[in-house]
Amino acid sequence: MKVLLVNNRLKASTEVMAKDIANSLIKRDISVVIDEGNGYIDNIDLVIVLGGDGTILRAARQYAYENTPILGVNMGTVGFLSTIELNEFYHYLERIITGDYILDARMLLDVMIYKNGQLYKNNICLNEVVIKSKNHKMINFDVEIGGDKQNSYKGDGLLVATPTGSTAYSLSCGGPIADPDLEVFIITPMAPHLITQKPFILSATKEIVINNFIAGEAIISMDGQIAFELDASFSIHIKKSEHQVLLVDLKQKPFFSNLEARLGRNGVT
Amino acid sequence: MKVLLVNNRLKASTEVMAKDIANSLIKRDISVVIDEGNGYIDNIDLVIVLGGDGTILRAARQYAYENTPILGVNMGTVGFLSTIELNEFYHYLERIITGDYILDARMLLDVMIYKNGQLYKNNICLNEVVIKSKNHKMINFDVEIGGDKQNSYKGDGLLVATPTGSTAYSLSCGGPIADPDLEVFIITPMAPHLITQKPFILSATKEIVINNFIAGEAIISMDGQIAFELDASFSIHIKKSEHQVLLVDLKQKPFFSNLEARLGRNGVT
Amino acid sequence: MKVLLVNNRLKASTEVMAKDIANSLIKRDISVVIDEGNGYIDNIDLVIVLGGDGTILRAARQYAYENTPILGVNMGTVGFLSTIELNEFYHYLERIITGDYILDARMLLDVMIYKNGQLYKNNICLNEVVIKSKNHKMINFDVEIGGDKQNSYKGDGLLVATPTGSTAYSLSCGGPIADPDLEVFIITPMAPHLITQKPFILSATKEIVINNFIAGEAIISMDGQIAFELDASFSIHIKKSEHQVLLVDLKQKPFFSNLEARLGRNGVT
Amino acid sequence: MKVLLVNNRLKASTEVMAKDIANSLIKRDISVVIDEGNGYIDNIDLVIVLGGDGTILRAARQYAYENTPILGVNMGTVGFLSTIELNEFYHYLERIITGDYILDARMLLDVMIYKNGQLYKNNICLNEVVIKSKNHKMINFDVEIGGDKQNSYKGDGLLVATPTGSTAYSLSCGGPIADPDLEVFIITPMAPHLITQKPFILSATKEIVINNFIAGEAIISMDGQIAFELDASFSIHIKKSEHQVLLVDLKQKPFFSNLEARLGRNGVT
Repeated sequence: MKVLLVNNRLKASTEVMAKDIANSLIKRDISVVIDEGNGYIDNIDLVIVLGGDGTILRAARQYAYENTPILGVNMGTVGFLSTIELNEFYHYLERIITGDYILDARMLLDVMIYKNGQLYKNNICLNEVVIKSKNHKMINFDVEIGGDKQNSYKGDGLLVATPTGSTAYSLSCGGPIADPDLEVFIITPMAPHLITQKPFILSATKEIVINNFIAGEAIISMDGQIAFELDASFSIHIKKSEHQVLLVDLKQKPFFSNLEARLGRNGVT
Repeated sequence: MKVLLVNNRLKASTEVMAKDIANSLIKRDISVVIDEGNGYIDNIDLVIVLGGDGTILRAARQYAYENTPILGVNMGTVGFLSTIELNEFYHYLERIITGDYILDARMLLDVMIYKNGQLYKNNICLNEVVIKSKNHKMINFDVEIGGDKQNSYKGDGLLVATPTGSTAYSLSCGGPIADPDLEVFIITPMAPHLITQKPFILSATKEIVINNFIAGEAIISMDGQIAFELDASFSIHIKKSEHQVLLVDLKQKPFFSNLEARLGRNGVT
Repeated sequence: MKVLLVNNRLKASTEVMAKDIANSLIKRDISVVIDEGNGYIDNIDLVIVLGGDGTILRAARQYAYENTPILGVNMGTVGFLSTIELNEFYHYLERIITGDYILDARMLLDVMIYKNGQLYKNNICLNEVVIKSKNHKMINFDVEIGGDKQNSYKGDGLLVATPTGSTAYSLSCGGPIADPDLEVFIITPMAPHLITQKPFILSATKEIVINNFIAGEAIISMDGQIAFELDASFSIHIKKSEHQVLLVDLKQKPFFSNLEARLGRNGVT
Repeated sequence: MKVLLVNNRLKASTEVMAKDIANSLIKRDISVVIDEGNGYIDNIDLVIVLGGDGTILRAARQYAYENTPILGVNMGTVGFLSTIELNEFYHYLERIITGDYILDARMLLDVMIYKNGQLYKNNICLNEVVIKSKNHKMINFDVEIGGDKQNSYKGDGLLVATPTGSTAYSLSCGGPIADPDLEVFIITPMAPHLITQKPFILSATKEIVINNFIAGEAIISMDGQIAFELDASFSIHIKKSEHQVLLVDLKQKPFFSNLEARLGRNGVT
C-alpha cells in the first residue's frame, strides 16, 4: 500500500503533523510519499490530505482521474470535505489501513474552454466554475442548455456549482444547498441586472455552454484556484465529468445533520 | 375517444368556450363530457382544461391516478402548465385528436398525514406542500430526511415543492427554479428565525417527515387548494408519488426559453 | 423613586430573581412594585424588565406613553433590547439608582385601524406591524404612501418595521438591518407573487395606508403580540408615534459591534 | 441663460437630437454650449443631458459642485434619473426656459481615498461606491462606522449606495430600495463568506471607513465609471457630500409609483 500525504505547504504546523503521520504509517510497512508540490505521483492507493477544503480541492482535481480515494483530515478550520479531525487520526488508523470505510463518490465538473472553436483548456473541478467580471463593469453573455439558448445575462457573472460546491461560494451568491448525492448543476447569476434572474437547478446529464461575451472583461475560475482571462472568442462548455472524487467516509453522518455549525459561516467562529 | 372538458366554473366566459370546443369535437365523433364539479369521471382518454394553472392543478390531482393525459388551454392569464393559447386550439385540433404530441410526465408529491400514528389523510399534489402558521405566532417543528433528523425549524413554516412547483409559491419564498425533468424536492424555510436556514434540494427517492409541532397553530396545504389544521399529534410524510401527471405537449419549447416572460410575475402584466 | 419590576410570568425562575432584585432595591429605600399583569401602573420612575425581548416589547407599549425609562435585564437568551445580563445587575446597581446612564430613545409605530372609515383600534408598537394571510390563500391589498398609491400586493402579506424591529421578524422576511437611530420605516413584502417587489425604506415622516383587501382572509399583528382579523372594510394607517421608548443604556456599545453574535440567530446557539 | 447640452458621444443618434434641441434654444436667445468631452465648463445655468442614466451620472459628478440644475432627457432606454422622454421635450420647452419646475436635490457620496494616510484621490458620486475583488479570490477588509469597528468582511466586496443608487447596482446585489428623499447609506456585502452578513442602512450623518485590506487584490469604483486598484496601504472614507445634485423635475410623480416598470429590469424589456 502506497500513501500520499498532502499538506498545506503554506502552513508549517501541518508539515510537522505530516511527518508524525508518515512515521506511524511507515511503522506499519506502508509506503509513504510526501507531496512536494511537484505534481501528480503514480500508483497511489490513498491520498491523505492534512488541511482545509482548499487543499482537498487541489488534491481532488489531481487524483480523481485514477479514482484514488482521498481522506481529508481537518486541521482546525471548518470544512465540508474532511471527515475526521486531526486528533481522531490514530483512533481511525486501523480502519484507514484496512480500507474499512465507505467511499463517498462526488460528481465533478468537466470544463472545456474553447477559443475560436479550438479546445484551449480542459479542467475538472469539484466545487464550482465561475465566470465573472474582472473589473468594475458588467459582463454580458449567453447561456445555452442542451443546445438551446436559455438566456442572456448581464451582471457580475455566473456560477455553476456541483452539489458539493453548493455549500461554498455558491451559497454566498444566493444559491440553494444541494444533497451531495444529487447529480445536478446549481446555476446562480451573480448580481444580475435583471432581478428576475434567479438560481436554477439542472440535470447534470445536460451540457451548459456559456458564450457570446459581447462586453466587459471576464475571467473564468475553477474551485477558486485555476483562473484564466476570457474574451469574446471564448466559449465555455460545462458537463458532468466521467470521473468522480472518492472521499473516504469513516463516520457516515447524514449530510444535513448539524449543517449550520459545519458551515462555519454564521459569524461566530 | 372520450374527452373530458374542464373549465373554471367561476368564469362564465370559459363556459362558452367549453361549449364551442365540445361542439367541434362532437362533430368529429368524439365523445365529450363537460365537468360539472361532481368529481372523478371514469374512462376518460384526454382531459382538456380551459383555464389557468389553478384549474389544471385540480384536474391533475384527480386524473393522475389513471395516467389520463391533460391538455391545458390558456385563457389569457400567464401560466406554466398550459401549452397552448385558446386561439391556437383549432390549429392544433387534428394533432390533439390523433394523439400527435409528446407526453410530459411530471413528478407528484405523495403526502401522508398521520394523526397519533394513524393515517389520517393521503393526497397527491403537483406543485407543493406548505406547512405554515395560521396566525401571528411562529411555529416550531422538526424535519427528518431518510429517517435522520435534519433540523429543527422555527418561523412561518416550510414549503416542499416539486420542480413543477418551483416556479410558483416556492419562488416567492426564495426557492430556486428547477428543470421539470428533475426528480428532486425543493425545500424552503419560510421566514426562518435562524437566517442561516436556506432552501435546499433533495433527491426525490428520499422520504421527508415533518413532525414534533411543539408550538403554535399550523395548517398544511397542498397546491394551495386542499388544507387542514395541524396540531402536535400530526406528522407529515412526503415522498415521490408512484403516479405522474401526463401533460400534453404540442410545442416542445425548452423549459428555460423565455422563462422570465412566462413567469408573468415581473410586475408588468 | 418608584421602580416597577416586570418578569416573564410564564417562567418561575424569573420570579425568584425579581424578588432578589426587589429586596436589594427596597434596602436602598426605593419603592418597588412587582408587575402582576393587571395593566398599567401609575407614577413609575423606572421599569426593570427581567426577560427576553418579548417581555420588553410588552412593557414598552405600556410605558412609552409616559416616557418611563425601561431597563432590560437579559435572563440568558439572546436579545437586542436588554443591555445588561442578570449577573451584571448588582455591578450596575448604583448607576441604575442614581440615573447615571444614557436614554436610548427608540421610534414607535402608531397604528390606526379603521373599519368602514371609523377608528376601530389604535395601538403603538416597537418592532413591527404585520399584515398577513391567516390561511393557505394569498391576500391582495394596496399600499399608499403620503396619499399616493404606491403599489398593489399579492402574496403572504407585508411587514412594516421600525429600525428596532429590523433585527427581528423583518430580518427573517428578507428585510435589511437599520441603525436604530434612523427614523425610517422598513417595508418588506412577504412571499410576494411578483418577485420584483423588494424591501424598501421610507422616511418615518410619511404615512403608510394599507387598504383594499380584495381577496383572502388577513390578520394584523403588532410586535407579534396583539392581533386582529381583517376584512375588506378595514384600512390600516401607520405613522411614527409621537411617543418613544426610552431604553436605559449602561454600556453604550455601538449597535453594529458584534451584530452577528447578538442576533443569536445563526444556528449555533 | 446659458445651457450645456450633453449627449452620449458614443451614440450618433443623440448628436442629431442635440443639434435640433440646440437650434430650438438658440432661436429663443439662449446661449448653448455642446459638451465635447473636454471637461467642466464655467457659468452654466442648466445642463440638459440626452441619454441614459450613465450619461447623467457623469454630468452630475461634474456640475454638482456649482449647484447647476440637470435635466435628463431619456432617449429610449429605461432609467431613474431622466424625467422626460425625448418626444416630450418641446412640450416642456417653455417651462424649461422659464425655470418653471421643481429641483429634486439628491444626496451625493464624498469618497476620500487615502494611501499610507495621505489623501490620494477625492471624488463625489451619485449612485454608489463599490470595493470588490479584481480576480477570482476573496478580499478581506474591515468596516468602521463613526470611528468604531463595525465588522470584518470576507467575500467579493462591499457596496455603499445612496438612495438614488438603491435602484441600480445595489438592487442587483440584494440591497433594499430607498426613497430618494432619505439621507442614508445602504451598505450591502457582496457574496459574503458569512451568510449572516446582510444589507444594512445607516444615517448619512456618519462616516464609513473601509480599511485593513489583508488579502486579495481589490478595486474601488464610483458610479461604475471611475476606478482604481487598491492595496493594503489604502483606506477609504465615505461620507455625505456637502454638495447635492439638483435634478430638474417637471412631472413630480411619486417615486414609488410604477416602480417595477421604471426599473426596466424585469426581463421583459
